[in-house]
Amino acid sequence: MDLRKYIRDVPDFPEPGIMFKDITPLLGNVKAFDYTISQLVDHYKNVDFDVIVPIESRGFLFGAPLARELGKGIVPVRKPGKLPANTHSVEYTLEYGSNTMEIHVDGVEKGQKALLMDDLLATGGTLAATAQLVEMAGGSVVDIGVIIELSFLEGRKNLAGYNVYSMIQF
Amino acid sequence: MDLRKYIRDVPDFPEPGIMFKDITPLLGNVKAFDYTISQLVDHYKNVDFDVIVPIESRGFLFGAPLARELGKGIVPVRKPGKLPANTHSVEYTLEYGSNTMEIHVDGVEKGQKALLMDDLLATGGTLAATAQLVEMAGGSVVDIGVIIELSFLEGRKNLAGYNVYSMIQF
Repeated sequence: MDLRKYIRDVPDFPEPGIMFKDITPLLGNVKAFDYTISQLVDHYKNVDFDVIVPIESRGFLFGAPLARELGKGIVPVRKPGKLPANTHSVEYTLEYGSNTMEIHVDGVEKGQKALLMDDLLATGGTLAATAQLVEMAGGSVVDIGVIIELSFLEGRKNLAGYNVYSMIQF
Repeated sequence: MDLRKYIRDVPDFPEPGIMFKDITPLLGNVKAFDYTISQLVDHYKNVDFDVIVPIESRGFLFGAPLARELGKGIVPVRKPGKLPANTHSVEYTLEYGSNTMEIHVDGVEKGQKALLMDDLLATGGTLAATAQLVEMAGGSVVDIGVIIELSFLEGRKNLAGYNVYSMIQF
């Protein structure tokens, strides 16, 4: 199944000059969404890990069904001020300005192996920050899974030393 | 299984005087999360509907696994500026200030039956706005499902005329 057909190009979003890869047609199509999750299940069913760490908020849409099917716990990584208990926090720089992501300090236990999950690998800043959060909590990153990889942004350079699996490359 | 054990009270979040119901222990416990999704599947497997409309972002964690298991499409409802294509938009008032939620205009098709899904029913404002968005797009709301209902806030009054299913009541 060619999932590219279910990714819509939206020009000038969120800023002029950016061609946004919109996954909502994939989400809305039962066969495409089913195929996407099945592929993730096949890819990760024999990988040894403990928890799925999905990134707010589109990562939740793929990480949660995968967690359910593989029988893993979910430890969400979120934007600042969203997680109610004590958090670790990582600030990272973007082309313009900076972002912060947070994880509960008691989310990942010492020694746990984590699979990070997001919808998109662009420059890799958010995923690198998430890997750092998991390591601050005493866990390790076994793999990073994304649906779409924007290869021309070379995000893997920011994720050197980590395994990255992407389903669709542009 | 008593799911209340997996809901953590966090005082003074997000504001002083508020006792926040934190679902992250439920997400992190494989048995509790599995039980939650299984209960949702049992409850909705014989209900006639077309799409699941989960609300950003905790609603995604429950709506996406349910969509996968029941073979339904997902049409996300999000905060302003997150959905890239043309949207319907509903602004609603809160105790202090207002919020806005959006849905893609091509997300729900005319005549489609929607199941709304969120983690929490508090005052019902966000869910009422989401129901309005589905109706603006030409769909109808078959049911509203939430994990936690804060009964003392009487959110069902804001959702008069809709079916509401909650798994845990406080």
